[in-house]
Amino acid sequence: MSDAKKKLEDLGKRIVTELKKGTQPKIDVPVRALSNVSYNEKTKTLQLGNKISERFFFNVSHVRKFAQSIEIAKISRQLIALGKHENLRGVFYMAKRTLPGTNTNLVDEQTESDKAIEDLELVTDLSREQLNMNANKNGSVAGQVIIEDKGDTIDWSKMGSGGWSIPSNVEGISFKKISAKYVVYMEKASIWERLHEDKFWEKHNCIIMSSQGQTTRGIRRLLQRLSKEHKLPVYVLCDWDAYGFYIYSVLKFGSINLAHISESMALPDAKYLGITANDVEKYGLKKHLIKMKDIDIARLKQISEYDWFKNNKRWQQEFKAMKTAGAKAEIQALSARGITFISETYLPEKIKNKDWID
Amino acid sequence: MSDAKKKLEDLGKRIVTELKKGTQPKIDVPVRALSNVSYNEKTKTLQLGNKISERFFFNVSHVRKFAQSIEIAKISRQLIALGKHENLRGVFYMAKRTLPGTNTNLVDEQTESDKAIEDLELVTDLSREQLNMNANKNGSVAGQVIIEDKGDTIDWSKMGSGGWSIPSNVEGISFKKISAKYVVYMEKASIWERLHEDKFWEKHNCIIMSSQGQTTRGIRRLLQRLSKEHKLPVYVLCDWDAYGFYIYSVLKFGSINLAHISESMALPDAKYLGITANDVEKYGLKKHLIKMKDIDIARLKQISEYDWFKNNKRWQQEFKAMKTAGAKAEIQALSARGITFISETYLPEKIKNKDWID
Repeated sequence: MSDAKKKLEDLGKRIVTELKKGTQPKIDVPVRALSNVSYNEKTKTLQLGNKISERFFFNVSHVRKFAQSIEIAKISRQLIALGKHENLRGVFYMAKRTLPGTNTNLVDEQTESDKAIEDLELVTDLSREQLNMNANKNGSVAGQVIIEDKGDTIDWSKMGSGGWSIPSNVEGISFKKISAKYVVYMEKASIWERLHEDKFWEKHNCIIMSSQGQTTRGIRRLLQRLSKEHKLPVYVLCDWDAYGFYIYSVLKFGSINLAHISESMALPDAKYLGITANDVEKYGLKKHLIKMKDIDIARLKQISEYDWFKNNKRWQQEFKAMKTAGAKAEIQALSARGITFISETYLPEKIKNKDWID
Repeated sequence: MSDAKKKLEDLGKRIVTELKKGTQPKIDVPVRALSNVSYNEKTKTLQLGNKISERFFFNVSHVRKFAQSIEIAKISRQLIALGKHENLRGVFYMAKRTLPGTNTNLVDEQTESDKAIEDLELVTDLSREQLNMNANKNGSVAGQVIIEDKGDTIDWSKMGSGGWSIPSNVEGISFKKISAKYVVYMEKASIWERLHEDKFWEKHNCIIMSSQGQTTRGIRRLLQRLSKEHKLPVYVLCDWDAYGFYIYSVLKFGSINLAHISESMALPDAKYLGITANDVEKYGLKKHLIKMKDIDIARLKQISEYDWFKNNKRWQQEFKAMKTAGAKAEIQALSARGITFISETYLPEKIKNKDWID
């Protein structure tokens, strides 16, 4: 029996035993809020504190959430038993059943089932992926790597112009051969196509990987496995703006919402290889600066005050330069310097000179 | 020399000749607006009418757009000569240069370069893909198909849990072996993962393909090539809502903006295999209906009045049923009936009974 299945069944058995004994069933859910999240200087990741919220079955204000958690545990156990996975939206519809003899649905909105899933992650110390529940897939990868997945042998260097499409859950992948020496992860699919067409990964013996916008958990886990299991450095290529910094921050340190799973997601050794204030000067991008809006400025302020950036001189220097410029820059602006400028000049120079931010 | 390169050079030569002769250079750009778009009953696609807008070089109100079109032609010729492709955002940065001796940029916003690209498509009768300019990539595919792309042989049936990642430009792909009998295209990546995990394409010998949300041009072209060159039926699996109908409408008939390229994009034989009013009854989805918002109702009205739906009784019946219900339904609601209900019951039944809308 899988570890996950056993943990879920133990949870169920405990509650049934408590009910039979006439004692009050209770689950302890660690508090997920900024007040219970701190930055661990040693592991260089966000981590959850010790604050616990007790949830009782025989308590009018607790019972709904209590029942939702148990329902999600039931669905997860069912998925594991069948060897199937379900998307978060599908889990919501599975949980949205009307309680017999009432007009009440167990969940009415997906936010409720999503929260119950996160609670279950905390209660069982299993990740959503181990509970067989997935978010949307996104992203592509190419490079000198051979993997095995679902009985297929897949060579990431022989995927034509498309690349391998990254699934939402990468726990079942095994790495057969990795010749690549590092990973370049980028937030933009268009840059991935640029580097792929220019055979960047072939010439520099690396892996290129992208999603579009915020990074999916499938990609974060894939990057972490390459970093942890195979010691590959990961370079993150983003726009020079608050949103790009945030993407990097989540990848490297973890996110506040998911601080309880930082350990299985974060990339404490990742380096920021995106556009910097220096690059704007050096590579003549000044005329391509885009004026920051109020929301950009607010977001920049917020990020600059994060515990994990607060005492980092290099990052503070970057934030200050952006504030002074009152402007941001996109990675695509490099196209103004020539179609293949990014693959033939910019990235090779940056990597050779170790011109990244830690 | 490629057809595209020759056409672009001919355009350039003509303008230079006219300038040297002292005559007024002019380009004729067909008008792209609803007033110049009509539905062709015979080809079952949207098509552009004959209205032409003349654009003169020596005309203060025309010169900016004129110069933009020529700049885009120059960039395209350069891309073709180098055998490279560029994303629309990159093209914008390439075109955004300051005219010598002035403070004026040739383009200031991406909307300008995007429009100039569409104009160039019309003037040259080349698609954006043939001009080597791409939008973002998205989407995955799996099934009994072997293709060749960029020198790699890719078997869509041996792609593990991820599938092959669809590139933004599929013009260079050649189909080596197609055993699959039809294509199921879906708007949601999560449904793709559901069908893929359940080996739907293997059991039913078909191809499954998805993006996320609105369909990319890469996917539309890939579907069209499978439909036109290989006579594969295409079934479109959408939510029962105005947005789902719109996705189907664009896939099947073409879009108003891109009516000039309907011929190379549209899928006049595609069938709508998504949720119907009937399904809501038959498969017990009533409790999972979601109340329509004002915007949904407005969108539904707009779609029901499209020329290509106006006289289609079956579709009008569907629109009316939705209006009466005042509600929509998501494809994921089928999960409430069981994890694999969609792959083992719903889709096989619908396909067997030809229960689709044309």
